[in-house]
This record gives sequence, structure tokens and C-alpha cells, in this order.
Amino acid sequence: MNKPRTAIEPTREENYPEWYQSVLKAADLAEHSPVRGCMVIKPWGYSLWENIQRVLDRRFKETGHQNAYFPLFIPLSFLEKEAQHVEGFAKECAVVTHHRLEKGPDGKLIPAGELEEPLIVRPTSEMIIGHSFSKWIESYRDLPLLINQWANVVRWEMRTRMFLRTAEFLWQEGHTAHATKEEAEIETMRMLDVYADFCHDYLAMPVIRGEKTPAERFPGAAATYTIEAMMQDRKALQAGTSHFLGQNFARSCNISFTNEQGEREFAWTTSWGSTTRLIGAMIMTHSDDDGLVLPPKIASAHLVLIPVVHNVERKAAILAYCEALAAELRRARFDDRPLDVLVDARDQRSGEKNWHWIKKGIPLRLEVGEREMESSQLSLLRRDRPHKERLSLARSDLAARIPHILQEIQDNLLAKATAFRDQHTVRIDSLDAFRQFFASETPGFALCHWNEDPAHEAKVKEELNVTIRCIPLHTPDETGRCIFTGEPSPRRVIFAKSY
Amino acid sequence: MNKPRTAIEPTREENYPEWYQSVLKAADLAEHSPVRGCMVIKPWGYSLWENIQRVLDRRFKETGHQNAYFPLFIPLSFLEKEAQHVEGFAKECAVVTHHRLEKGPDGKLIPAGELEEPLIVRPTSEMIIGHSFSKWIESYRDLPLLINQWANVVRWEMRTRMFLRTAEFLWQEGHTAHATKEEAEIETMRMLDVYADFCHDYLAMPVIRGEKTPAERFPGAAATYTIEAMMQDRKALQAGTSHFLGQNFARSCNISFTNEQGEREFAWTTSWGSTTRLIGAMIMTHSDDDGLVLPPKIASAHLVLIPVVHNVERKAAILAYCEALAAELRRARFDDRPLDVLVDARDQRSGEKNWHWIKKGIPLRLEVGEREMESSQLSLLRRDRPHKERLSLARSDLAARIPHILQEIQDNLLAKATAFRDQHTVRIDSLDAFRQFFASETPGFALCHWNEDPAHEAKVKEELNVTIRCIPLHTPDETGRCIFTGEPSPRRVIFAKSY
Repeated sequence: MNKPRTAIEPTREENYPEWYQSVLKAADLAEHSPVRGCMVIKPWGYSLWENIQRVLDRRFKETGHQNAYFPLFIPLSFLEKEAQHVEGFAKECAVVTHHRLEKGPDGKLIPAGELEEPLIVRPTSEMIIGHSFSKWIESYRDLPLLINQWANVVRWEMRTRMFLRTAEFLWQEGHTAHATKEEAEIETMRMLDVYADFCHDYLAMPVIRGEKTPAERFPGAAATYTIEAMMQDRKALQAGTSHFLGQNFARSCNISFTNEQGEREFAWTTSWGSTTRLIGAMIMTHSDDDGLVLPPKIASAHLVLIPVVHNVERKAAILAYCEALAAELRRARFDDRPLDVLVDARDQRSGEKNWHWIKKGIPLRLEVGEREMESSQLSLLRRDRPHKERLSLARSDLAARIPHILQEIQDNLLAKATAFRDQHTVRIDSLDAFRQFFASETPGFALCHWNEDPAHEAKVKEELNVTIRCIPLHTPDETGRCIFTGEPSPRRVIFAKSY
Repeated sequence: MNKPRTAIEPTREENYPEWYQSVLKAADLAEHSPVRGCMVIKPWGYSLWENIQRVLDRRFKETGHQNAYFPLFIPLSFLEKEAQHVEGFAKECAVVTHHRLEKGPDGKLIPAGELEEPLIVRPTSEMIIGHSFSKWIESYRDLPLLINQWANVVRWEMRTRMFLRTAEFLWQEGHTAHATKEEAEIETMRMLDVYADFCHDYLAMPVIRGEKTPAERFPGAAATYTIEAMMQDRKALQAGTSHFLGQNFARSCNISFTNEQGEREFAWTTSWGSTTRLIGAMIMTHSDDDGLVLPPKIASAHLVLIPVVHNVERKAAILAYCEALAAELRRARFDDRPLDVLVDARDQRSGEKNWHWIKKGIPLRLEVGEREMESSQLSLLRRDRPHKERLSLARSDLAARIPHILQEIQDNLLAKATAFRDQHTVRIDSLDAFRQFFASETPGFALCHWNEDPAHEAKVKEELNVTIRCIPLHTPDETGRCIFTGEPSPRRVIFAKSY
């Protein structure tokens, strides 16, 4: 039997990493740049980030945070104040050493004006924001201090993949300071929940909330919490992190305050971040062998009208009908924004146009030809249904029906992704079964007992390229025996291969 | 007679640059960072940028532009492709030369992993975006290509002033490519108008549209257009620029297309930008000796409710009344957003609170005490009126009246700034009068005839620190004689001292 033709080659099953690159290309989301490890985010991809930003920014503000902006550069001496922190980033940072260019002996431009102290392009901003916090905070009345920054950061990763791991990426980083340990812990969990709910409600991507093991903590943190999602190759992807920093960074940056008793104390701080990686996660969760599939709440646009012109003399009339219909539909709303409706007026066959928009992942397509104009019944095509399945709808019902259909697609995507994740999550209770499970190319998540010994954690990472993704927060405690040592264990943790 | 006490010292008249710094500090807008020339934008200042972004972004999209994102770093060889361009930026750019840190002989961290080719932190993105355009554009069907980017850029300025000139700043940069010279010229002017209208309608800041002289052009541009505003020290401030790049950058970056006749042609490109400097311009246009004055359409918040508590037992009731009133007012709208209403519940005397918010520039203050609760008449105080002038308003009218009052304030600020600008703009027809005019500390704008000779332009720049701000676009042509040479001149240009 011949394999059915797909718009994307190779398919997910044939070669998942190449499929991913092909989907990006076919949907025109992003491309490699001539700068090593950096990407260009094209308009269709950038609009996904704008939609993510709009929703997250609103949620941050609803939870009491304010935006601010801090310098791109961090003096080397600042990074060095926290030993673990600098060690975590020293191997992969962009270093600015000069502040101008001048003509060298051969007439070519060379760096000149050497800086007294090298500047690091921020890989994260704890140290530079901590410096400001140390000046802004005097008394307990200044707490909590709840700040967020939307910015670009640079980590000189050697192996990059668009959206998932690039040298420069866009993100938001929250930084907060509190008077007590408990308040900082509550904040850490609150923001983890904001991320998890966002992934669930907007990206239609189920995530598991959990704590990272000490080996996987953010450099300098007291505890790191994560949300982990399963991609269609059954690998785990860390989709956001929230760190309880204890008083570590407060000590390094001297963030202290006078408490109600008039004594000086170090503050308790947190930081939390999510990045353009969320776009990669969304793509790898929902897309299929015909290209991008977008959850409607985050989609770049909701609906495209495709004029079907058989007789060129009727083209102007059909386009005018489409524009009028589009204007009408744009008055309806879905979730927090007006319906975003496109009209594809290009001179192409409607079949070509349909495939164009299938690959770009638009949730709905509406074909409009002479027949539809006359009968006022339009054919709606859904990205989450077979490509030729037409749903006939009366024009008069469209504005009311479309938001419901979009919500249905949103719900379907979440249900499908959740079922997939659950189907590929297994409980494993012996080391043999564990090794066998992870010998597969596409294993999934393994829930296993582990006695918290980092040596065994390091060994499976080394031997099998498998890591503990997290110690889940919301699973019932279940005692058992560690699969490595047979020792008693209070709960299962999640092992997986990962991005 | 004693000088009246002001909240800001020194006053504008006493020392304008120091007054500016004091206003920034008193309003808590921004502060210097430990990184040379970089600033920290604090929440009250950043919200101004968010409001500017929201409005400009909408206008860019309404005029057909799409957002995208390009790398922070530009390979040195890219910058070198356009000789004038690189010369314009070589003297002030941050150069990345290494990609990690390692322990040096004395145990201290030093830059390591030298890059084969230095990377320049973008001072502007023509060359890196041009590279993408050269790949995206194949045929006339791909044109026009209308792209905008919101980003940070770095120019290693030696003398910095917060918001006005900093090493790193935030901006947007539009980059477009067109099939014909005429279309590119239309685009250049369209975006200049978007900027001018924005300054006028939102920042309440009148600007003069004009062309820069060849000496003041963007490096590599065929023509640079500018909007110029007058600050209260009567200096000019360039508030935005729009460049017609001709085919210069298209040649350097190889941006070519196949025209309708099947021939290969270079595209015609434009670029245009506006920055966080707009915040500085707004501050210097409207603020007074008591602190910040904000145009309501861009203000961080519209209104603050100030509870007046004389009897501590009534505090809870007054606060509850304020919160209920705030919730009610937030359902009203002004311009494109809901009323942004704050409640200042801090334990301070109402006089202190009033001064706090005067310095922060909030357009309206509303005092609420027991008397107001009982009578349901509230006292409204306007930032643009004397600080003790109370306008008594019925609670039932507030939601309807406030948007009108905000618009009135917006209009007043524009009228006042326009009158100031016009009052300090003079026509000068002799070199003696010119020299006398610019001998003053606070001269203003001089409209003079000039015969386009760059030597005289350079000379007054050198001798008097006066530049031609622009050749105005929208003034009637008026022939006359050049004040330097006596030669015939077709129009007046604007001379001024500037930021």
C-alpha cells in the first residue's frame, strides 16, 4: 500500500526533527539567520508571540506585577557575586569587550576602545535587577516588590533548534522580593500556576507541575519548579520555570529591609520565566503531517475566506462579497479579541490556497464562490478535521457559530494532546523494565520510585540520556521502592528523554 | 520677594538639565544603572512606553505593517557592506568578541572562546533585515514588504541623558521595500505623518515635519525626514525620523526583484524609527516646577482617589467607598482604554499624598473623606490647574464627566505647548540678528534663508552649536536671500540649538 501523500515531508514518524523544521518552513514561521544560533521570527510566527505576550502580560498584571526594563549588559563583576550562578552561565555567554571599531593595519575594521571591564549580554537578569532591588527596598513597607520584564536574552548554546533553543531568544522574566520565606514560596507557586493554566487554557497543552531535582535547579536557586509537556515524539519539554531563590540572591546583591521590629533582614526572592520556546512547544504538540495546527486562542488569525473564482468576470463581485462578509465577522469576538479574519485574494486556484492555509495552521477556512453567494450557504473547513470535510453553514448563522466552533477546536486539541500524553505515560517498577522502556526511540514518560540519590540520576543521564523531568506536585503520595536501590521511596518521579 | 516654593529644585529657569533629572527622580520614572550609559526604566516610566507602544503598534498595523523579529547581533562584515552606514556607527558600537568566560591565571574570570568574526550589537537593523529581505523578495508580487520590529538597540554614546540619549534604548524600526521610487517615497512620508499625528494627538506635542539637510542625513540614506519639537528650554528635539533609502541599501544587501516585464531590478527601501526618547520629549514639553505633567492619553494612570481620613475609626469605611467608586469609574473609558484609576490607601496625610501624585504627573486627583461620602459631592483636582483649585462634582456625574475633563486637559496641554513654540519661533533675516539671537542661553527656533551651502551650515554648528533642524515641509515657499551669502534662496529653514 502506498503511503498517503502528506503536505509535510518527512512525516513525524519518518524523522521527527526534520518534520519540525519542515513545518516551520511550510508555515513561514521563522528561519535561520546568518548569525550563528540566532533566528529570524517571521510575521506569522511573531504574531504567535504577540498573542502569548498579550495574555501572559494581562495575567501578570492581574496578579499584581508591574513591568520595568533593565540593562541588556551585566558587568562581569556582578555575575561573579553568586558563585553557582556565574558557573551556570560562564560557558555560554556573549562577551562585549570593545565599544568601537577602527581601521586596522590592512584597512579592515577591527574592534577598538577596549572596556575596562567586560560586559556580559544578559543570559538572565537576577544580578542586574538585584542591584536595583537593593536600592529600591528599604523597609518592609516596600515589600512585596513584584516586577516583570519582557526582553531578549543570549545564551551561547552550541546546538540550536529554532524556537526550542537559540542563542538569542525572547522571554519574560519575573523578579520579586518578599518579607518572608512563606510569601516568596507562595509567589513561586502562584506563577507556576499562571504558566500551567496558560498552557492548558491557551496553548491547549497539558503540563505537569513539579519540582526539579537539585541537579536540575536553576544556578543559585533554593528550589526550581517546572511545567513539563510531552511532545509528539514523546520527549519532555520544559515549558516554563519558577524559582524560589531563598535568600541566596538577596545576600549576593544585598537586598535587605528593615522589618516591623526595626531589624535588618535579607529579603526572600523569586524569579520565573517563559520564552519563545512556548511557540516550539505548541507546534510540536498539535501539528501534523500536513503542517502547523494552531490552538484558536493563540492562532495568528482565526479564519480565512477563500474566494473560489471559476469565471474571471465574476471575480470582483466575489471579492466584494468576501470583504463584506469579513467585515461582518470581524465584529464578532472569540475569547479576548475580535475575530481575526483574512481574505485570500491572490490569483491562485482554491485548491492551492486551501493547502497554503492548511500548512499555516489557520483554524478555519471558508470557501466562497458564486454558488455560495447565491444560496447564502457557505462551506466551512476545519483544520482539526479531514481536509475535505465541508460543514455547510448559513451566512446568517456564521458570526454566532464561529466562536463556538473555535472553542470546540480548542477543546479538541487539548483533549487529544492530553490523551496522547496519558497514553504514553507508564508506571515502571524495575530497572530492567526501565532500561527496556528507554531503549525505544520514542519511549514517553516513566513514573518511577527513586530514593533521591543524585548518583543514580547522573548515571541514567549519562547512559540513557534520560533525566528526571520533575517530582510532580499534584499526584497522590505513593510509597514504593527505588528502582535503582530498592530503598523505600515516598513518591514517584517522572523520567523522560527531553528537549 | 521670596521665590514661591516648588516641589522640584532647581526650577526650569534656574537649571534646566538638573530640573529634568529632578523631575525624573521625583516621579520615579527611571534611574541610572551601574552599566555605563544604560538606564533602568522603572514601572511608572515603563508604563508610558507601553502606552506609546500600544498606540503606535495599532497605527503601524492599520497602515499594513507586520511585526517580526531579527537578531540582536550583526556580523561586522554585514555592516561593512554599506560604506557610509558603517562609518556612521563605527565610533559608537558594542562589539562582542568572545562567547564564554574561563578562569584566568589569577583565578578571575576572563573572556574566552574568541569569535572568528566580531559581532556588533545592533545600533539599527538595516543590514541584518536587508539580508532577510534579499531572501524574501523574488518578484514584484512580494512587494511592498512592510515590516516593523520592536527592539532594543545600542549606540555607545559618550554623553548620555536618561530617555534622551542612552547607550541602550528601546525603539521600533520600520523597514519596507517597494517596487518603485514613488511608492517608497509615499511610504516614507506616510510614516512621518504617523509619527507627527501621534505626537500631536497623544503626546500633545506639536512637531514640525521637515527634511534633514544632507549633512544631517541617516548614514546611507537618500533623504531623511524628521519631526522636530521645541522643549521648554527652547532647544529642538528630534522626535522621530523616516528615511527614504533609495536603492542604496538594496544594492548593498542585494534586495532585487523580477518586475512585471520579467527584468531584474533593485527594490526601493525605507526605514523609520521612534524611541523611548519620546518619553523624554513629552516630559520636557509639559512638566513644570512641581514635577511631571502627563498628557492623559499616554498617562500611566488617569486618576487617583485620595482617601482623607481624620478619624481612624472611619478609615475602613472610607477605603471601601473609594474602592467601590474606583470600580465604578473603571467601567468608563477614555480614548482607547478603560479609565485607569488608582486608590492611594497608604497611611499618609492627604497633603503628602497630593504632592506625591502632583510630582508623578497624574492628570486627576479626587479627594474622598467623610464629608464627601455624606454629601456625595467630590473634590476633583487637575494637574493642569493650580494645585488647590477644587472642582466640586456630584458622584453620579463623575463617570460621564471625567473623560471630558481628561480630553480638556489633553487639549490644554497641546494648546499651551503650541503657543510656547510659536512664541519662541522668529524670522531672522540678517547674520547679525542671527548671531545675537543665538548668543542667548534660550534662543528658540530661527526661520532663516539659507542657500544650501554645507560650509555655512558646518560653520554655525562649530561656532554657535546651532544646526539646521529641518527644511520644513508644510510652510509656504517664500523666496528671500541667504543670511550667510546674500544669494537667492527659495525657502526658510529652521535653525536651533538641539538635544
